[in-house]
Amino acid sequence: MDYCFGVDIGGTTVKIGLFQEDGNIREKWEIKTRTEEKGCRILPDIAKSLLNSLEKNGISKENVAGIGIGVPAPITEDGVVKATANLGWEYKNVKEEMEELTGIRTATGNDANVAALGEMWLGGGRGCKNMIMVTLGTGVGGGILINGKILTGEHGAGGEIGHLCVNYEETDNCGCGNHGCLEQYASATGITRLAKKKLDSTDRETLLRKGPVNAKTVFDAVKAGDEVADEIAVEFGTYLGHALANLAAAVDPAAIVIGGGVSKAGEVLLPYIKKPYQERAFFADRDVKFTLAELGNDAGICGAAKLVLD
Amino acid sequence: MDYCFGVDIGGTTVKIGLFQEDGNIREKWEIKTRTEEKGCRILPDIAKSLLNSLEKNGISKENVAGIGIGVPAPITEDGVVKATANLGWEYKNVKEEMEELTGIRTATGNDANVAALGEMWLGGGRGCKNMIMVTLGTGVGGGILINGKILTGEHGAGGEIGHLCVNYEETDNCGCGNHGCLEQYASATGITRLAKKKLDSTDRETLLRKGPVNAKTVFDAVKAGDEVADEIAVEFGTYLGHALANLAAAVDPAAIVIGGGVSKAGEVLLPYIKKPYQERAFFADRDVKFTLAELGNDAGICGAAKLVLD
Repeated sequence: MDYCFGVDIGGTTVKIGLFQEDGNIREKWEIKTRTEEKGCRILPDIAKSLLNSLEKNGISKENVAGIGIGVPAPITEDGVVKATANLGWEYKNVKEEMEELTGIRTATGNDANVAALGEMWLGGGRGCKNMIMVTLGTGVGGGILINGKILTGEHGAGGEIGHLCVNYEETDNCGCGNHGCLEQYASATGITRLAKKKLDSTDRETLLRKGPVNAKTVFDAVKAGDEVADEIAVEFGTYLGHALANLAAAVDPAAIVIGGGVSKAGEVLLPYIKKPYQERAFFADRDVKFTLAELGNDAGICGAAKLVLD
Repeated sequence: MDYCFGVDIGGTTVKIGLFQEDGNIREKWEIKTRTEEKGCRILPDIAKSLLNSLEKNGISKENVAGIGIGVPAPITEDGVVKATANLGWEYKNVKEEMEELTGIRTATGNDANVAALGEMWLGGGRGCKNMIMVTLGTGVGGGILINGKILTGEHGAGGEIGHLCVNYEETDNCGCGNHGCLEQYASATGITRLAKKKLDSTDRETLLRKGPVNAKTVFDAVKAGDEVADEIAVEFGTYLGHALANLAAAVDPAAIVIGGGVSKAGEVLLPYIKKPYQERAFFADRDVKFTLAELGNDAGICGAAKLVLD
């Protein structure tokens, strides 16, 4: 039992890592995600790639603890997906199918939850057992870890932090059909939206009028001392910090890890989130540690590998 | 291993039950909570009472699976309390001390969390593994169960549902020091507050002007078709339903159980909570089952007993 696989299925590529049990990545690679014909080739393609890797590296199945798979959809504890937005799958028992294809024990999880587990194992949440991770990308994803385990939930939809309602007055729709979801303010798209509204509402000078407006340029302008950009960051951080304070009252975490594309802005981000968090957090949760994610695109394969080691 | 004890420590009395492993209560009783001298007598009093019960019933320690204890304070997974509001305890390792006093394995939990576990085992949440319980009493307490286990959290403060902020405009203070906490709108005290504000803001006729104004009289008036009371119930239900929808996005429960004194109003309560919940819930969480708690004051001893059977 010296090795395991971590597999992170995305809509375009599948990331795969061959891990040693201590967390070292012996090898990592990608294959194409073939979504045609209801995605029927995705799991067989992965299985073939894993078995090839074992053969190439001279590793026998007996030395593999298992295959962990992160899936971009709600997935139950039993490994069942009911529908996917971008893989073509309808009902599928991912765990069972992969075990049949490979003869190797398989564990599964939602991709955002699995990334959170990866950050807890090897990244920004190292040493924590209770952790919230929020992933600020095109959307806002999240993962909640309780006693070192993923909070999967009844329908595999635990940790859907992006869809906490943070503004009951909002009239614009979120992709989920609701309005006022955290995702509308704290994702890369959301920050762009806040920025454009801000620019429309003022004619003050700002660096943001000199080029494209997006999450990166907003935080670049913040770093350059731009006042308008600072106000946009305050708005972003207030929504996110307040949502995290409410979440912490329920979950009581040791750490909150901020990841995703937006987090590449770096440490400058954290005070904007921490201040409103601390203003609103329940007293027992006020000392929570805020950190940035560290694993970038590898969080998924790392967490997936950890799934089978637990 | 045919028996176990469930102990629910309150500020005035300690409730104790001798359970069979199938959940039947063989005997239940109460003793006084002696909080003087930093509460140093509370655990010895309980230990004595339990050992007496074994002797009286001719049960040997070998046939006792353990002692479960619910405590009115945050308590860590290891059984450590750092402070209590109404027992006099400062730092105390409850688990260790009770095991030394009795020689019987002991498990501990926060009283609201333990009550939730009781309702899952024998009450309104029977058959569920993932459940949120919200207790509408003088305050608003709560418990979150994930895969059948209590979400204890890092500081033993998991499930503090009453302190989710639901109104950032609120100027009145909550007991916790924040303002806008769910407890200020959904507790018995909170409903009374909402009702008084409503009565001050209108001179419409209502049954509520004919006697004392409290949670019971509000829901009695609702049942009698009173329009002003209905509007108060809508306000209460909107705050609670929206807070539960946010919580469900994080936790993805199968059921939400409503307990505490306010829940004695009965089924009339549920539509007021469910409607705003469903309007705001993430799609995967919309079919959650809403039920009333069933165990009343026994929820604590039942859940405490279940702690040691798991």
